[in-house]
This record gives sequence, C-alpha cells and structure tokens, in this order.
Amino acid sequence: MEDTLQVVLKRVKPTLAERKRLDRVMSGLIKRVGLVCKKLGIKAKPILVGSAARNTWLRSERDIDIFILFPEELPREEFERQGLAVAREAAGPKGREQFAEHPYVTAKIEDFDVDFVPCYDIADLGKIRSAVDRSPHHQRYMIERLSPELADEVLLVKQFMQGIGTYGAELKVRGFSGYLCELLVLSHGSFRKLVDAASGWAPGVIIDIERSYPDPAEARALFKGQPLIVIDPVDSSRNVAAAVSMRNFATFVRACQDFVRGPGEQFFFPKPVQRLSRRELSEALERRGTKLYCVAFETPPRVPDVLYPQLRKTERALVAALTREGFEVLRSDVWSDGRSIILLELSTSKLPRVRVHLGPPISVEVRDFIEKHLPSKRRFAGPFVDPAGRLAFEVERKYTRAEQVFKRALTERGAFGKHVAEALARGYEIYEGVEISKLYRGKFAEFLSEYLTLCLPWYR
Amino acid sequence: MEDTLQVVLKRVKPTLAERKRLDRVMSGLIKRVGLVCKKLGIKAKPILVGSAARNTWLRSERDIDIFILFPEELPREEFERQGLAVAREAAGPKGREQFAEHPYVTAKIEDFDVDFVPCYDIADLGKIRSAVDRSPHHQRYMIERLSPELADEVLLVKQFMQGIGTYGAELKVRGFSGYLCELLVLSHGSFRKLVDAASGWAPGVIIDIERSYPDPAEARALFKGQPLIVIDPVDSSRNVAAAVSMRNFATFVRACQDFVRGPGEQFFFPKPVQRLSRRELSEALERRGTKLYCVAFETPPRVPDVLYPQLRKTERALVAALTREGFEVLRSDVWSDGRSIILLELSTSKLPRVRVHLGPPISVEVRDFIEKHLPSKRRFAGPFVDPAGRLAFEVERKYTRAEQVFKRALTERGAFGKHVAEALARGYEIYEGVEISKLYRGKFAEFLSEYLTLCLPWYR
Repeated sequence: MEDTLQVVLKRVKPTLAERKRLDRVMSGLIKRVGLVCKKLGIKAKPILVGSAARNTWLRSERDIDIFILFPEELPREEFERQGLAVAREAAGPKGREQFAEHPYVTAKIEDFDVDFVPCYDIADLGKIRSAVDRSPHHQRYMIERLSPELADEVLLVKQFMQGIGTYGAELKVRGFSGYLCELLVLSHGSFRKLVDAASGWAPGVIIDIERSYPDPAEARALFKGQPLIVIDPVDSSRNVAAAVSMRNFATFVRACQDFVRGPGEQFFFPKPVQRLSRRELSEALERRGTKLYCVAFETPPRVPDVLYPQLRKTERALVAALTREGFEVLRSDVWSDGRSIILLELSTSKLPRVRVHLGPPISVEVRDFIEKHLPSKRRFAGPFVDPAGRLAFEVERKYTRAEQVFKRALTERGAFGKHVAEALARGYEIYEGVEISKLYRGKFAEFLSEYLTLCLPWYR
Repeated sequence: MEDTLQVVLKRVKPTLAERKRLDRVMSGLIKRVGLVCKKLGIKAKPILVGSAARNTWLRSERDIDIFILFPEELPREEFERQGLAVAREAAGPKGREQFAEHPYVTAKIEDFDVDFVPCYDIADLGKIRSAVDRSPHHQRYMIERLSPELADEVLLVKQFMQGIGTYGAELKVRGFSGYLCELLVLSHGSFRKLVDAASGWAPGVIIDIERSYPDPAEARALFKGQPLIVIDPVDSSRNVAAAVSMRNFATFVRACQDFVRGPGEQFFFPKPVQRLSRRELSEALERRGTKLYCVAFETPPRVPDVLYPQLRKTERALVAALTREGFEVLRSDVWSDGRSIILLELSTSKLPRVRVHLGPPISVEVRDFIEKHLPSKRRFAGPFVDPAGRLAFEVERKYTRAEQVFKRALTERGAFGKHVAEALARGYEIYEGVEISKLYRGKFAEFLSEYLTLCLPWYR
C-alpha cells in the first residue's frame, strides 16, 4: 500500500517549481490588494485562504482564494460598495462579477482562477453574517495544525475522493469539500488510518475534533438524517459534511472497504468512461428492454448551485408522480449544459386499467373508504377481503400510460424549482427509446454512456 | 335489529312438523343401530351428535351424524372391523364407505344425509386416537349448556356465517364450523352480543370459556399466527378455530362492524352472484386490461379436504415463482370440479430484460456479492451505489415473459401437493385472455363471474 501512496503522491503534489510559481503569484496578489486598499483609502486587509494557502493544493487544481477582510462594524451597504470596489480594481479589466450570498469577483491571472472575496472580519462566529465569513477562521485553524506531513496526507485523500467521484461540496456533486478532507485527516492522523476507520462507518457517524458535544446523542439529534456529521471546529452549530449525500457517503465507505482489501492506483486514477458509439447506444437501449424517456428543455440561466437542486427536485417530483400511479422507475438522473435533461427509465410504460386499492387494516374504521368507492363509476370489484385480511377495491386506473402521468406532472409543475418550472412552461420535448439518439452528441453522449454502463470508477 | 332477527329466525328454524320428522328419523336410527349391534353380538352403543342432535340444525341442512361408540380397550384392527360391520349393516345396501382418519359409512335415508361413524368411547381426551373421538364429548358438553333460547341464537350465527360466506370448516372453505358457532354463542350469550364483540376483534383474539389458560399469553404462544383462538372446552390443546383463515376471520369481523351499523337481511340472505353473459365476460376481460391465465388439468380423484390444500399449495408456488421473477400478480384463485383450474391474473406478462439486483446494506460485507456479479455475462451495469446508499448491479433477467416462469414451475412441480403434481405431470393446458371463453360454462362460469365481480356478499 505504501508504494501505491508514494506513486500517487508524486503524481498529485505540485513540484518545487510549481510551488514556487504559486507562491510568487500569491504574494503578488496580497501585495496588489494591499496597494489597492491604500490607493482607494479603504480600511481592509487581504488574506489568502483555501488549499493553495495551506499546501493542500493538488497539481490539477487552479483555484486561488484571496479574501478581503472588512471591520465588523462596517454597515452592510458600505461593505458591499467598498468590497466590490477593491475586488474589481485588484482583479483588473478581465475580472468578472459573481453572485453568491453577496457579490465577489473572479479573474484569470496567469493560468490561475483567482477569487477576490470581500468578507467581514468577525471575532465571534455566533455573529456571522455570511458563510464566507467563516473561511478566514478555517484558514487560521488549519494553518496552526496541518504539518507538511499531514498536508501530504490531505493530498492523498483529495485525490482519492476525486478518483471515486465524491469530491466537491457543490450542489451538483453533493460530495466532500477540501476543508472536510483536511478535517478528516486531522481527526484520523493519516490517509491510511482514515481509510481503515471509514471502512467501518455506518450512516450517522460523528466526528467532533474539539469535543464540542460531550454527549454525541446531542449532535446526532441536531444533525439527524445526515449520513456524515463532522462538527466544524470553529463553529459547532455547523456540520461541515452537511452537503454529503447518502450515495456519496456510501460510495466513500465502499471505496475504503475495497481499498483496504486491495489497494491500487485505480482508486485515485480510474479508467475514463468509454463513450458508446451510436451503434452501441442502440444496442444497449434495445438490450435493456426498458422505456427510457428524456425530457429536454432550455436551461434557465442560473449558476449550478441554484440549477441542480431544482433539476433534482423536478426529477423527484416526476418519479414520485409515476410511482404513485403504479409505474416502476428503474433509474432516473439529470443532466445540464445548454439544455437540461431529466432522464426517466421505466420497466414498462403501460399498466392494466384495473388496480387494487387497499383499505386500512382490520382494526381501523372503513366506513369512509367503502362509501367513497362503492358508488364510484371507476369501481371494477369490491369491497372484498384479500388473503392477508385487508379490505380492498379494484378500481379503474386514471392513467394507464406513463406519458400521461408525466405530461400531466409537467403541466402542473407542482414541486419543481422556480426557474426550472419557468423554463418548462416555455416548452419541452420528450424523447423516448431510439429517438434519444437525436440528442446523442458532445457532453450528453458522455453522460448517457456513463449512465448506461454505470459502474463505480475503480471497477471500470 | 330485533325485527330482522325475528324474520331470519322464522326462515331458518325448522318448523314443528320438520322437527318432528327429524326426531322420528333420528330415534329410528338409534334403534336400528342398537338392533344391529345386538344381532352381530358387538359391544357398542349408538349416540347422536352434531347440530341435528342439539337443536342447532338449519332448515337448509340435511346432515344427521350417528356415532357408534366402542370400548376404549378394543384393539384398533378389531375396532375397524366391527365398526365397519355395524355401520354397513345399519346403512343398508345404499350405504357408501368413506375414508377420513378411519373409515365410516354414509347413506341417504329419507332425504337426509346420514353418517354412521364408529369411534372410541374415550374417558380422558389426552388418550384420543382420532379426531372423531372428540365428537361425543362435544355433544355431552353442548347438550348440558345450550338452552332452547341459545340454540336459536346459534341458528342466527350459522345463517349469518352462511350468508357472508364464512361457514364451514372444510379445507375448501377454511371457515367457521357449526361447533365453533355454538361455542361463540355460549361464550357471548347471544347473536347480538357476539356481533358487538366481534366488531372490535383483531387477529389473535382468544376465547377460553373454561379458563384452561390462566395466562392468555400461553395460549397465544401455543396458537401463534392463528387469527382466531377458541380453546376447545373438552380438550384445551386444541384451537376449535384452527381452520379459520385470515381472510374469513377478517370477513366476519367486517360483516359484524357493518351489521352493527346497519342490520339487514342481506347479511343472512345475500343476492346471488349474477352470471355474466359471454359478451359481458369479454367486455370485463377487455376492460380490466390485465393478463389472465387459467392453468387447466384433470382433477385427481381425491376428496375436497385432500384436493383443495394441494390446489392452494400449487397456486402459492406459482404466485411465488412469478413474484420472485418480478411479475406482479394482482389476484389468483383455484377452482375444481371434473377439471381443476388455477387462475393467475398479472398486471403485465412482459418485463424488460434488465433488472436491478440490490446488495446488502452498507454495514454488511459485499465481497461475495461483487465477485459473483462482476464477471457475469448477465451484468448490464454495476456495481454502483443507489441514492439510498445500497450497492446494486443491473443484471439480465432470466425470464422476461410470465409464461416462461410458470411453465418452468409447472415442469419442476417443486412445492405442489403430490396428487396435483401427478395430475399436472399427465398434462395441462394454458388459456389466456379471450381463450378463457372456451372454458366458460357451468360451474366454472359461475366461479369466473364471481371472480370478476368479486364483492362481499352483503354489498352485492
């Protein structure tokens, strides 16, 4: 195992030359922001945060985060005005303004993606005004504790997460953030010890480095339903792993189990997905024998962190509508680029007109149930008692075809996100089976190839 | 309610003339058996048992049971020889020998169905040799306790059971025996009080008239899984309601709930099932939109108490095979006359080639699961992690058509009963959809009409 880790580390850790270049760019940025503040007569000070600033930066990464700290007492409006002024001036003419909880500016500098982020310099995190105000605290906490040896272990964890597909806290991924990877190394001591421990994790595991909760039951109650609970050392009210989905949690645990049994580079650098030819696509669709639908529409102009939760909400609403009407959804997924696609795969698109409507168990009053269904024109049979003793009717199914169900759901747009609902109101197309080959190009072709050959990356 | 009960009682209770005639026939039988014993020099004595002998006989009934009691110490072989000799002689030339646990003779006498049943006169029921040895004890127990008023209440209970379709302990019905109805009246005091109490019954209810089990938990453990537990006052090791199926138990409870809310004669004398015309049959099949199969074969020459459990076992085995392969069985049933038919109704007869094979939950080792499916030629996708965190594969379904599944099960005949398995080995036909109209005549037409318009009798 040690050999593998050495090889991986060599491949992912920046070389001395790369490190020097990064350091040069970073100190240049600090200097530049300092000068801008002076020039504009603004009382603020720059600080580097994130992986670049704490030696946990993978060679493949390009991000540098420079935060501009403003005094706590500065009014919000004034903070935003001054913050944007400094960020814009420092970023130069190529800077582009972005909007998260509050505005910041990004710019390509040399070949780095630099974020200029104004934030408040808050002493007591109980008085936090925006999530970005936490970052300087994370930086101070980490820099004091992460030795160069531990930083190397973080590189291994981050590359492992990338390899198995669970890296990134953004809502498109719902995986492990860089800061979370650092905390996991800090709490376990090394990549190896983390992987050993995580092999035995079950949903609901709690990691509380600073022992903020003497009673783990309290933390468990507070973050109920979240598969992984990692208490933020600088703000105990926050679960750093809140974004981690059950799927990503389970994927990480399974990867650790497999790695412990048989370590290898394929966990860090898996084979890429093979893109299917058009012929292979047709064969795969034919072979599965399912009904595969793509609902395609114009992507609303929103950042991924806004767009993806809405796409997933829409996906869930369609799946729920189909399931409620008795259709079995084998799998579903979402994809987005210039167009957005919700993919629904059903085992059958047609159900019989009759369906069984089960009543309450024997101990429960049934008068209402009987009075509702007995005179109904939709009644086929019943009331009768099934072999398990439950009262039942056979009634006419409202929709016998899956298309009817999801077209209706697409018209109602009940539980969809706002922007996706608006985009769908402007129009959509449905592609089924072989028609999907019309969409089969570029990134969607990659996505669909991966969907059809779905496999944990280290088993590819 | 009282009016209804008066009307019903008048209709079901034998008239004075009928009663007199019955009494005359019965005393004639006692005399006749006594004379036969004398003539053959056999030491045995006749006793009348059953509803005819305790005034709980419905006008519609025809059965008279005369038991021939032999001394306990008589060896088995001798008992059977002497028993049959007496029974045959008493029944006369029209008598027909029957086989249950041991042989007995039936005969049509006037227009009554008379059973001549030899049994042991056992003092301690712990030493019982055959179920029929209990009947004289039941007779003695009941005759001491059933006043003429209570006997009338029993008539109401029995007719109620007949009306709602739950009367009869034979294995074709799996309902309430006459003796069970008598015990229910004895324990509750009247039809009305029984119906009130039963409205609140849940599965597992215990009725223990003689308080044989001071701790009900003991009785519950002993008769676990049986919905109704009525301890036999003459043999506490026996649940008199052991034959009552969950469906019949629930049907009775629902009928009582409905009767309490709105009494009426329809519970006792429901409308008959309307037989569908051939045209209505086609329309009903078409309207349901399901796949209805009839597996038809020659009925093995066995009594209903042997045949029906085997037919149901076969039905369950076929349903289990279909369910295991992913097919949804809406309903199923069995029917038997000269031919036997197993009816299977599926929501669809065709499933996609791909199916999801879920692995163990995250806390369980998965190496075997992965090693089994990863190299398989039947693998479509996987291993992957589903949204709930479970490991899964997509594999090729063995059988995509329902016919393949049950034809295979019919060839293997694994969990079928012996005689039905033998009959199926000799051959069978499968009818589906409109082909079923070829079978549509006589009693099967009635059965199928009831199946398609299935409804609790009092709601018809």
